[in-house]
Amino acid sequence: MKTFSVSTKGHTDVIDISTRIESLLPKSKSGVVTVFVSGSTAAISAIEADPNLYEDLKDVLEKIAPYKKDWKHHKTWGDDNGAAHIRATIFGPSETIPFENGKLLLGQWQKIVLIDFDTGPRTREVIVSF
Amino acid sequence: MKTFSVSTKGHTDVIDISTRIESLLPKSKSGVVTVFVSGSTAAISAIEADPNLYEDLKDVLEKIAPYKKDWKHHKTWGDDNGAAHIRATIFGPSETIPFENGKLLLGQWQKIVLIDFDTGPRTREVIVSF
Amino acid sequence: MKTFSVSTKGHTDVIDISTRIESLLPKSKSGVVTVFVSGSTAAISAIEADPNLYEDLKDVLEKIAPYKKDWKHHKTWGDDNGAAHIRATIFGPSETIPFENGKLLLGQWQKIVLIDFDTGPRTREVIVSF
Repeated sequence: MKTFSVSTKGHTDVIDISTRIESLLPKSKSGVVTVFVSGSTAAISAIEADPNLYEDLKDVLEKIAPYKKDWKHHKTWGDDNGAAHIRATIFGPSETIPFENGKLLLGQWQKIVLIDFDTGPRTREVIVSF
Repeated sequence: MKTFSVSTKGHTDVIDISTRIESLLPKSKSGVVTVFVSGSTAAISAIEADPNLYEDLKDVLEKIAPYKKDWKHHKTWGDDNGAAHIRATIFGPSETIPFENGKLLLGQWQKIVLIDFDTGPRTREVIVSF
Repeated sequence: MKTFSVSTKGHTDVIDISTRIESLLPKSKSGVVTVFVSGSTAAISAIEADPNLYEDLKDVLEKIAPYKKDWKHHKTWGDDNGAAHIRATIFGPSETIPFENGKLLLGQWQKIVLIDFDTGPRTREVIVSF
């Protein structure tokens, strides 16, 4: 098990972590690696590394769970990140990916990403287990 | 591999199972644990344990896949739980979480939850593998 | 680690791969199997094998991320599959499922499916790790 930190801007910030994951994998082994983000307003998924597509994703999620809405969660702690929680729960905090000789077995355009949905900058811890 | 049962009320019932998972983990080992729910109208995810946030989640899902809709699935078996199936499929039935010395490596507010989307009370089986 | 190929039609084509996964599992062992699809416009999830329900799922996703929309991603490469990318990212590329004596521990109606969201027929590679 290994960890690394990622600085994020929040507001559905999509960050390609494929290379960082691969740098931790044993070069001469094969298996699966579980990628997990600790924190209830971030998620792990896969997407093509296209900033235009990241904008499309933000537009879709803004319709499903808009940031500027009077979420009931905001009454609990005076928080402003109800949308971030909802988005993170729909995506889920983990993905498990096969690797061979230290390389993730991804499709040509497929990247593993950390998505930070929170409403401000954060430092996120990603836990990589293989 | 170990299992435990959870009594649920359905209708997007969110149940924190973090403590029950941890009670099954070996106290002196580290690794990853896969949490899986059998059944096609329930899911596993992570969320802050806030009942207000659970209500927000229900509101969002009610817009995406409302319970009171004439789903085509209802014609197949005379069921009334089309929305429950759709919601469960979007969330997925598994998450894999790292643990250390018997403790899940979750964020401060992050809990692992079983969500039962079905339209009545059920007993759910959760399968914990490590 | 084993792989198999699946011919898909795209447009949110749902294909039950439970039997193909089980055919690769060791008959006398138990554990977990990770099912992963390589490619950024497909996903793995679970659903009841009901064609009516597949239509319901398509209807819901068409509202969330419609195929015929002027996605920003289309400007990047001249592609037409922005909706497919968004859908795949929301679902995620992996699920991990427990098995016993070569049988997946699924619910009575629960099947593991490959969903191909792309806009034309494809051959998909599914990677099965246990």
